[in-house]
Amino acid sequence: MLKWGINIINRYQTDFMKRGFGSDNHAGVSPEVLEALAAANLEHALAYGEDEQSVALTALFKSHFGEKAEVFPVFNGTGANTLCIDSMARSHEAVICADTAHINVDECGSIQRVVGCRLLNVPTPDGKLTPELIRTQMHGFGFQHHSQPKVISITQPTELGTLYTLDEIKAIVDLAHSHQMYVHMDGARLANAAVALQKNFYEMTTGSGIDALSFGGTKNGLMMGEAVVLLNPALSKNFLYRRKQAMQLCSKMRFLSAQFTAYFQQELWRRNAEHANRMAQQLYQTVKGLPHLKVMYPVQANAVFVQLPREVWKALQERYFFYEWDESQDIVRWMCAFDTTMEDIRDFSDTLLTLLNQYQK
Amino acid sequence: MLKWGINIINRYQTDFMKRGFGSDNHAGVSPEVLEALAAANLEHALAYGEDEQSVALTALFKSHFGEKAEVFPVFNGTGANTLCIDSMARSHEAVICADTAHINVDECGSIQRVVGCRLLNVPTPDGKLTPELIRTQMHGFGFQHHSQPKVISITQPTELGTLYTLDEIKAIVDLAHSHQMYVHMDGARLANAAVALQKNFYEMTTGSGIDALSFGGTKNGLMMGEAVVLLNPALSKNFLYRRKQAMQLCSKMRFLSAQFTAYFQQELWRRNAEHANRMAQQLYQTVKGLPHLKVMYPVQANAVFVQLPREVWKALQERYFFYEWDESQDIVRWMCAFDTTMEDIRDFSDTLLTLLNQYQK
Amino acid sequence: MLKWGINIINRYQTDFMKRGFGSDNHAGVSPEVLEALAAANLEHALAYGEDEQSVALTALFKSHFGEKAEVFPVFNGTGANTLCIDSMARSHEAVICADTAHINVDECGSIQRVVGCRLLNVPTPDGKLTPELIRTQMHGFGFQHHSQPKVISITQPTELGTLYTLDEIKAIVDLAHSHQMYVHMDGARLANAAVALQKNFYEMTTGSGIDALSFGGTKNGLMMGEAVVLLNPALSKNFLYRRKQAMQLCSKMRFLSAQFTAYFQQELWRRNAEHANRMAQQLYQTVKGLPHLKVMYPVQANAVFVQLPREVWKALQERYFFYEWDESQDIVRWMCAFDTTMEDIRDFSDTLLTLLNQYQK
Amino acid sequence: MLKWGINIINRYQTDFMKRGFGSDNHAGVSPEVLEALAAANLEHALAYGEDEQSVALTALFKSHFGEKAEVFPVFNGTGANTLCIDSMARSHEAVICADTAHINVDECGSIQRVVGCRLLNVPTPDGKLTPELIRTQMHGFGFQHHSQPKVISITQPTELGTLYTLDEIKAIVDLAHSHQMYVHMDGARLANAAVALQKNFYEMTTGSGIDALSFGGTKNGLMMGEAVVLLNPALSKNFLYRRKQAMQLCSKMRFLSAQFTAYFQQELWRRNAEHANRMAQQLYQTVKGLPHLKVMYPVQANAVFVQLPREVWKALQERYFFYEWDESQDIVRWMCAFDTTMEDIRDFSDTLLTLLNQYQK
Repeated sequence: MLKWGINIINRYQTDFMKRGFGSDNHAGVSPEVLEALAAANLEHALAYGEDEQSVALTALFKSHFGEKAEVFPVFNGTGANTLCIDSMARSHEAVICADTAHINVDECGSIQRVVGCRLLNVPTPDGKLTPELIRTQMHGFGFQHHSQPKVISITQPTELGTLYTLDEIKAIVDLAHSHQMYVHMDGARLANAAVALQKNFYEMTTGSGIDALSFGGTKNGLMMGEAVVLLNPALSKNFLYRRKQAMQLCSKMRFLSAQFTAYFQQELWRRNAEHANRMAQQLYQTVKGLPHLKVMYPVQANAVFVQLPREVWKALQERYFFYEWDESQDIVRWMCAFDTTMEDIRDFSDTLLTLLNQYQK
Repeated sequence: MLKWGINIINRYQTDFMKRGFGSDNHAGVSPEVLEALAAANLEHALAYGEDEQSVALTALFKSHFGEKAEVFPVFNGTGANTLCIDSMARSHEAVICADTAHINVDECGSIQRVVGCRLLNVPTPDGKLTPELIRTQMHGFGFQHHSQPKVISITQPTELGTLYTLDEIKAIVDLAHSHQMYVHMDGARLANAAVALQKNFYEMTTGSGIDALSFGGTKNGLMMGEAVVLLNPALSKNFLYRRKQAMQLCSKMRFLSAQFTAYFQQELWRRNAEHANRMAQQLYQTVKGLPHLKVMYPVQANAVFVQLPREVWKALQERYFFYEWDESQDIVRWMCAFDTTMEDIRDFSDTLLTLLNQYQK
Repeated sequence: MLKWGINIINRYQTDFMKRGFGSDNHAGVSPEVLEALAAANLEHALAYGEDEQSVALTALFKSHFGEKAEVFPVFNGTGANTLCIDSMARSHEAVICADTAHINVDECGSIQRVVGCRLLNVPTPDGKLTPELIRTQMHGFGFQHHSQPKVISITQPTELGTLYTLDEIKAIVDLAHSHQMYVHMDGARLANAAVALQKNFYEMTTGSGIDALSFGGTKNGLMMGEAVVLLNPALSKNFLYRRKQAMQLCSKMRFLSAQFTAYFQQELWRRNAEHANRMAQQLYQTVKGLPHLKVMYPVQANAVFVQLPREVWKALQERYFFYEWDESQDIVRWMCAFDTTMEDIRDFSDTLLTLLNQYQK
Repeated sequence: MLKWGINIINRYQTDFMKRGFGSDNHAGVSPEVLEALAAANLEHALAYGEDEQSVALTALFKSHFGEKAEVFPVFNGTGANTLCIDSMARSHEAVICADTAHINVDECGSIQRVVGCRLLNVPTPDGKLTPELIRTQMHGFGFQHHSQPKVISITQPTELGTLYTLDEIKAIVDLAHSHQMYVHMDGARLANAAVALQKNFYEMTTGSGIDALSFGGTKNGLMMGEAVVLLNPALSKNFLYRRKQAMQLCSKMRFLSAQFTAYFQQELWRRNAEHANRMAQQLYQTVKGLPHLKVMYPVQANAVFVQLPREVWKALQERYFFYEWDESQDIVRWMCAFDTTMEDIRDFSDTLLTLLNQYQK
C-alpha cells in the first residue's frame, strides 16, 4: 500500500528526475502514437465519438475482445475503473477487491463518491484474490442491513507485479457468476500481462468470462486515455449517459481513438510491453543477489518490489524518484517502462550497490 | 460481523417470537415515554424543531453535555451516524473505524452513499480501536491519490459489548487532534456504557474531547429517534440544511423531543440501562459455566457473545430469535433490554441447558 | 414558492403560537393513533419490519391499492419522495415536475444529493402539470449530453391546494407510459384529495396507472412516518437495501405500522381529511368577500391562498404563524387541519377583518 | 436549448461531414499544439502535475490572471465546470445560472451527481443573467428547507454567442459578494470573448471579481484539456484531492500542460479566436439579408443563430452537420472555428441560398 506523501513536491521540485524507475507513467509517448495524433489532425470530424476513427474503434476492439465487446474511451484509469464498477453495481451493492487494489487505495475514494458503494477489501499475500479469500466476504446476501456483494474486481497484473493464470481467473469468474455477481478486471497494464503469459487479450478477458475491463494504455506508451471495454452486453445499456455525467466524454474523441488504433497497429502494445517486462527481468537479475536486499514478489510483469535498509533507499531517493510502497516494512517499488534502457539499469544499480556497500561498513 | 440473512423472514413469519435475547430493539417503549408523547399532544405547535419542547431540548442537552453542545434530533441511528460523519468529513476524506463498527458493517453503505467518503476499517480483538491500531491507517496525509484521514469513529459500548475507559478515549482523542482529525462516538447504547463505567455523559464525551456524538435512545426504551450532539461548535455550521437534505428532519419534531425529555427526567436512561446491564450479568453468570459454551468477550454492558456447537444454537433459534454473529466461528449474540426479566433468562437458559445436555449425549 | 426564512425563529421563539393556520403539521396526533401506539407496546417484537403488525401492513395496503402494491414505511415525506424517485430513476435520468413541487422547492435538494438526478421543473398556473406542459421537457431522448426524462412527478392535491381529476391523471400517465417513463404521485395529503374527489385510493393511484406513491399521513393526524407504496412491481426489486442505505429503515417498525393501521381503521383518514377540507371551505367562505383580499386558487382541499396588502398580512403574522408563499406578490398560505375548529376560524377572521378595516382607513 | 438526439448517429455514420459549422469542436488542433506535444515527449517526467512544465504552468497562469490565481488542468469542460462548482458549493447549496447554461442543459446532470446540489436556472432573453434576473432566485437564505444560493454561474461568451460587458460582470459580482456568494465563469470560449471585447483575461476575470473560472481551449485549437483557474484563494484548499476523486487527474500531465503553454505562446489563443470571430462576422454578413431567415441574437463571438423554415434547415442538414438549437422555434446554430475558411462560408451559403430559393418557389 502506498504510504508516501506530499513531501515529494518539496523534495523534487527544484531537481526534476530525468530517468529512473519511479513509474511507467514517467515515460513519454511512443513515436507511433504521436504520429497517429498528427495523422488524425486533418479536416473536421464529428465530436463525442461519432467521427470515423472512433466509430471504427468498435470493430477494432471486437476483433481483439470478441463480437460482444463494446468499447468506450475515457480519459484515465480512475475514470475507467469507476465507470466499469458503475456499470455493474449500484450504491447498495459492494465490490470485493484486494486491499492493495488501485480502486481501494489510490483513487482518493472515487468509487465511494461516484458510485456510492462499499468496497470489501481483502488482505492478500501477493496482490491476488482467490476464491477462498473472496468467500470470506460473500455473505449477507438478502440481508437488508448489508451492502450486497455484486462485483469482484481483480487487477491483471496486480499492483504487486504478479499475475493471475487463466485458470485462476476462471475460478474467480465461476464463483462470481454462480452468485449472480460480475467480474471486473483492472487492466491498466494488461499488455504486460498478455506478453508475460503469452496469451492474447481475448483469452485473458472474454474467453475467461470477464464482464468488464479497464483497458489501459497510458502506462505502456499512450499519451492519455484508457478504454472501458464491456464484454457483457447487459452492462452497456446506459453507459453513454453515465460516461458523460461522470465527466469522461471527450469532445475531440478522435484524438483518443487514434491512440488506441496506433496501439494495436503492428502490435505496438506487444513491443512496448515485452520491452518493459524484459527490463524488469534485467533489473531483477541485477539486484536479486545484492546484500541486505530482498525481492518481495515474483517478478512477472514490469515491477520489482524490494525490501532494503531504510538509510539505503532513502539515500537512493536523493538521486532517483521512486515510491516507498510500505514504509513500515521498508519495501519500495521500481517500475520499468517501454523506454527503459540497459544504461538506466546500470546507472541505477551502480548507485544502489555503492549505497549498499556503504551500509555494510 | 453479522453474517445472517433474509431467511429469517421465512423462518419466523408465521411464528413471531414474543420475548428473547434477539436485540434491545425488540423491546418496546418505556411507559414514561408513551406518557410524554401523550402529554406533547396538546394544541398546536410549530413544526420542524421550532416548538417549545424542541427549543428547550437545547438547554437540556447542554446541561448534560456542556455549554457548547448543540443537539439535533434525527430519526434513527443510521441517520445519526451518517450525519455526524457528514459534519466532519467530506468525500475526499476518510474515517478510521473498527471493522466491526456499525457504520462499516450494518448500514448498507450509508456513509459511502451519503457522504461519499472512504472508511478505513481495522480488525480489532475486542471491537476497540487503540492508538496503535489507528496508526496503521494514518498515512498518506497530503498525498493527492489517497483519501485523507479526517475522523476516528469509536463505538461506546462497542458492538461486542466491551467498553472504552475514559483514558482510552482520551488517548484516541489526543492522537486525532494532534493530526487535525475529529473523533466521533457512536453512542447507540451510551447509557449502558455510562452506568457500567459509573461516569456521566459529559465525562464520556465532551470531557474526553469527543467532537460529535450519535446519542441513542431507541435501544434503551425510546420509540424512535436518536440525537446528533455536536460538541465541537465548528461542526454545526450547515447542519440544519444537511439534516433536511439527508431526509432526517422530522416535521412534528415535538414528538421526538418529548421522548428525549422523558429519557432524562428522573433518569429514565439510567434506570433502563442499569436494568439491561444487570440482566446481561445475570445471563452471563447463568451460562458461563455451561459445557461446550465459551463466552467470547468481557460482559461489560448488555451483550453476551458466546461460542457454542452449531447444532445447539441452531436448535435454540427454533424457539428464540437471535443473531448468529459469526457463523464461521459459531459465535452468537444475546442482548438484554430494559424489560428483560429473570423469567426470560430462566426460560432461555433452561432450554439452552436441555439442548447442551442432548448434545453431550 | 416559499420565500420565507429563518427570521421565524427569532420572531416566535418567546411566544409560541398555539393555534392557527400555519400548517397541517402544526396539529397534533389523532387520539386513535396514540391509542394504537400504546396498544403496539406489548411484549417484544421483531425489528426492521418483521413484526406481525408490519407484516400485516402489506395485506392492508393491498386491500386499498391493489394486489400488486408493495408498502414500505419510511420516516417522513422527504424520505418517501426521494426513495420513490430513487426506485424509478438513476442519476443520468430526469424528473419532470411542477416548479412548485415539494421535491423541487422544499427538500433542500434531497433528490439531487441522494438520487443525483436532474429535476426539470415547469411553471404552471395552478400547481398542476398537463401533457402540454410536460411535453416542453420531453426531448433529448437518446442524446448523450442530456439527462434522460424518466419520471413525471405530480402532487395530489398540489402544493397550491388544487386537484387533478382522474382523467387528468390518466392523460399524464398515458403520455409517460408511451415514452417508457414512470409517474410518481406525491400524496402527502392524498386523503384530502380522496375525500374532495369522492374517489378511493385505488382509483386515484393504481386505477389511474400511477407507478409509485408517497402516501402521507403526518399532515392528517399521524405522529410521524409516511409510506412508499410501489404500485409497479418492477420498482420494488432493491428497495429494502436502498431504504436502509438512505437512512429510512425504522428499527422498531411496529410503531410506524401501528399508525397506518389506525389510519385505515374506521376510516380515520377520511374523517380527518373531510374535517380539514370542510374547515378550509369555511375559511374560504368567511374571507372570500373581504375587501383588499383575493383568493388565488380554487379551494379544493385544505389550503387557502390569498393575496392581501403587505401591512395586513405582516400585522396578522404578529398574532398568527403562517407562511408568506410568494412575498413578491403578497400571497400567503393558510392551511386547515383535522383539528381546526370553527372558533379558530372566527378568531382568525375577526383579527383579519379588524386589520383590513384599519388598512382601509 | 439543444433538442436534438441520437438519430444523428444513423444519419451521418456512413457519410461523415468533412467541414461545416456544426461545432468548434469539429475542428482539429493547431499545429503549434501538436508541436508542443512532440516537444514535451522527451525523456522522463514526474507524473500527476509534478513535472517541470506543469509546475511552470502556475507562473504562466499567474501572469495572465494575477498572483492569487491557481491553475489545475483537467480533462474537459464538464470536468472544469463541475469541479469549479464543487470548490464553491456543497450539496445543500444552490447555483443560479441561465437556463441555457451548459451546466444546466448539456452535461447530463453532472453537477447534480458529483456535487449533489441544486441548479436554479433562469430564463433569459439572450443567454445573459442580470442582477434583476438573479434576484428572482435569491431568497430562502437561512430557511432550512431551501437549498441555499451560493454560486452565480455565468458563461462568457454565452451559449447564444452573446457577451457580458465588464460592467455587467461586475454588477453580478457585486450582487453575489454582498450575499457571501461566489461567481463562476464558464469560459469554454473565453478567448473569443477576450478578442471581441478587446479585454485581456485578467480584466474579464480577476479584475472583475470572478472567483472561479473554467478556462477552455479545446474549442479554440487545443487537443483536449481545460483548466480550472481558482482566483479566490479560499477555494483551492482541497482541490487536489477532489480533482483526483472526481477522475480528473491526468497522469502524464505534461501533455496537458504543454498545450496550455503553446496556447499562450505567441498568443495562439488570440490568433485563433480572432479568426473564428471574424469568420462568424463574415457568415453573418453573408446570410443576414437572406429571405425567410432571421438572425436571432447579436453575433458577438463565433456563433450565428438563425431561424429559418424547417424544410430548409432539414435539407441543409443533409449536406452539413449542425445542431437544431430549438426545434420548436426552428432555430439552428452555426459555429465558426479557428480553421474556418472563406471557402467554407461560400460553399455553405451557396447551398443555403439555393435551398431558400427553392423554398420561395
